[in-house]
Amino acid sequence: MGKITVDDIVVSPLKFIQVNGGNVFHAMKKTDNGYIGFGEAYFSEINTGHIKGWKCHLQMTLNLIVPIGKVKFVFFDNQKRYREEIIGHERYARITVPPLIWFAFQGISDSKSLILNIADVIHDPSEVQRKDLNDIYYKWETFS
Amino acid sequence: MGKITVDDIVVSPLKFIQVNGGNVFHAMKKTDNGYIGFGEAYFSEINTGHIKGWKCHLQMTLNLIVPIGKVKFVFFDNQKRYREEIIGHERYARITVPPLIWFAFQGISDSKSLILNIADVIHDPSEVQRKDLNDIYYKWETFS
Repeated sequence: MGKITVDDIVVSPLKFIQVNGGNVFHAMKKTDNGYIGFGEAYFSEINTGHIKGWKCHLQMTLNLIVPIGKVKFVFFDNQKRYREEIIGHERYARITVPPLIWFAFQGISDSKSLILNIADVIHDPSEVQRKDLNDIYYKWETFS
Repeated sequence: MGKITVDDIVVSPLKFIQVNGGNVFHAMKKTDNGYIGFGEAYFSEINTGHIKGWKCHLQMTLNLIVPIGKVKFVFFDNQKRYREEIIGHERYARITVPPLIWFAFQGISDSKSLILNIADVIHDPSEVQRKDLNDIYYKWETFS
């Protein structure tokens, strides 16, 4: 297996369809870039200013969609290169994250944000590594 | 194929995990009741009091989850039997709807609700039948 780097993270714009009474917006099709199988879908909320991380999945490919709010994701690879991506209602897109990338994320909307992860495997704590937030240096935004 | 009735609709309670900075809540695992394959996942918003319907899918099995707000789903089968289910943040559950069931839904939260549909096939207009809201009688709630 070649080395996984932050360049292997893919951001795919998603469609947003205006409908009377409430819009429709795409998340993922099985024919989409980044789809490699369905294991589990789950939601995570993230409060304004709050940061969750760091985590690194050994097996799971994540497909991250933010239908509500705005979230900054920060990724690090084993070459210590980093990458930032902000997605949400304004920049409606899906981020595909291969395994072996360290990531953390912060809610940067005025109110709570919602993240959907469509993962190719079922959540299993034994395939997740964790570090404390301060173990990887990154200058996070501060919110009062 | 046996006749599909509203009794074939399955409501599965979902787990909700309290996490510092934002909760995590399940949507669907591939090992769950109601999972018969992944075709597409998409979101629909529904505004307070607004009703979308009627629709009947000829092929698609829907798995409906409401992570934000509260939605009333009304289902009719070909025996003219009906069934109502209200799901949302308070009653956090997934509704599995087999094909050949007519359904419509109304946002009944104070603010906009969000629905995730995890479908076993990709959306295709040719497998959807539609009726006007007044074509099937149901006494919807009124919102001022």
